[in-house]
Amino acid sequence: MYSIGVNFDLTYITAGIVDEKGNIIYKEAIPTLKYREPEAILKDLAALCLRIVEKNGLVIEDIKSVGIGCYGSVDTEKGIMIYSSYFKFKNVPIVSILQKYIHVPIKCENDANCYALAESKYGATKGYSNSIIVTLGTAISGGIIINNKIYSGKYYGAGEFGHHVIVFGGEQCECGRKGCWAAYASQKGLLRDAKIMAVRHPESMLFKMVNGDLRLMSFRTPFEAAQKGDKYAKEVVETYSKYVALGLINIVNILQPEAIAIGGRMRKIGDMFIDDVAKLVGEKTFGHLEVEKKTKIMLTKMDYDAVIIGATML
Amino acid sequence: MYSIGVNFDLTYITAGIVDEKGNIIYKEAIPTLKYREPEAILKDLAALCLRIVEKNGLVIEDIKSVGIGCYGSVDTEKGIMIYSSYFKFKNVPIVSILQKYIHVPIKCENDANCYALAESKYGATKGYSNSIIVTLGTAISGGIIINNKIYSGKYYGAGEFGHHVIVFGGEQCECGRKGCWAAYASQKGLLRDAKIMAVRHPESMLFKMVNGDLRLMSFRTPFEAAQKGDKYAKEVVETYSKYVALGLINIVNILQPEAIAIGGRMRKIGDMFIDDVAKLVGEKTFGHLEVEKKTKIMLTKMDYDAVIIGATML
Repeated sequence: MYSIGVNFDLTYITAGIVDEKGNIIYKEAIPTLKYREPEAILKDLAALCLRIVEKNGLVIEDIKSVGIGCYGSVDTEKGIMIYSSYFKFKNVPIVSILQKYIHVPIKCENDANCYALAESKYGATKGYSNSIIVTLGTAISGGIIINNKIYSGKYYGAGEFGHHVIVFGGEQCECGRKGCWAAYASQKGLLRDAKIMAVRHPESMLFKMVNGDLRLMSFRTPFEAAQKGDKYAKEVVETYSKYVALGLINIVNILQPEAIAIGGRMRKIGDMFIDDVAKLVGEKTFGHLEVEKKTKIMLTKMDYDAVIIGATML
Repeated sequence: MYSIGVNFDLTYITAGIVDEKGNIIYKEAIPTLKYREPEAILKDLAALCLRIVEKNGLVIEDIKSVGIGCYGSVDTEKGIMIYSSYFKFKNVPIVSILQKYIHVPIKCENDANCYALAESKYGATKGYSNSIIVTLGTAISGGIIINNKIYSGKYYGAGEFGHHVIVFGGEQCECGRKGCWAAYASQKGLLRDAKIMAVRHPESMLFKMVNGDLRLMSFRTPFEAAQKGDKYAKEVVETYSKYVALGLINIVNILQPEAIAIGGRMRKIGDMFIDDVAKLVGEKTFGHLEVEKKTKIMLTKMDYDAVIIGATML
């Protein structure tokens, strides 16, 4: 038997056929075209699932279940996508819509929760019963695992780590508040600060590496410039690491998980970045804990395909 | 049968005899004299427990168990007080020390966790399976209840809400970091800000109410002056409410409990204060939730005696 896992993301919908060991044996993506009505998007999502079954010489009876990892908060019991700030969805009954086209059991869950679940079974947080995944990308998402299960709060809205304020009255966040962690520790925050530094210091490598065209700056630029010795880029990178660490320390002081794994695009920066962050977190966490009692800070082992795998575990 | 609950606090040790319905039928306190060795303090604590049994015409066989609510993080399995920033204790085996004097089962737990447990059974958060208690006093403590049980993190250090940073690079906190919530939303933070305002504006009622002797300022002063119309006091109170609300919103966005109850000294300010805070939290929480899905913000019903009662529930 196989399962289908779907990463229902803002830009792409990716569906994968997953075997019983958690391997994706085939996957395919279509553009989400998010500005359409939910019904139209979900019809495409269902068609994608059915198509990959056929393409792999399978029939729907070979599929045990379909799991959807959604970009937004999800009422997992009722199968409803409650809210997504980016999709502008409100209370869309995605399971009942999909069930019109797909006649196997369907479940849905927040994508970061799927990520956390897969990572805790197959990835970096394997073996830890209490763990957290934080994805640092355009925004910040989070998934909480307590006693090997997803913890999603009373109304499926827990884990919004990106929207905890770390700078009272600080940078405007998309959620409406000011100074959220997401406004500093996301890729967006990093790029803003790197660009401001480049504007202030046209003599910097930050500026020169993009020939002054700030549109070309990527999340890698400040890290590469810093490695080449640019003091301005170093300052940007150090400040960014401090912001990332600060939010992680806050999470540790509140929830004290065994491990936090960092996923998302910023994961690609790699060990140099995570080592700095882990050091800061270890030094500043409340309680003067012995080393072995400190929350482990690491990179996730899996990329966004973890959402597909996690969705089949629901 | 009865149980004994002990509130093992910084200034006083209060022990109470609690009946099976959670009523304190007798209680008595002794000064902690915290600068002594742990053994000396715990000997006094044990003597207090034995004395109140005798004073009430009971014998030790009438006592089912003794529970200790400790000011610090506690390894509840091993009965060890792991760490307390105020006591300067590290890894004190309090259960095995007490067991030398008291021959009934003894358990210990963090005091805020005891508070949260008692409140969830008898107080304001009764009926909610996921709730949080935050005490705003000299410092900020917290207790987390998930699925009707204490959640204390992997190493008994969760719920340190006071030590999540809300102002990057802000006021120095006793924990070593800067800008912690405790440095703003505790009584200490309120008094600092009220005193600074009074220094800047000797024409304010804040200043006049204490005849310029800032030592006389209490947490009630800014609230009383504000109620009398003093614009400076109003500003202090409004800013303080914003700080309190901001931390609560952060907690809701991370954990989304059904209810958060505010205890501690600031609870005495009453409904006017909590209504303002609850309004701010309701408006700013992430996710545009419907009213019935918003985390309820309320005052605790019980005072610090909840620690005694909660300790008997361990």
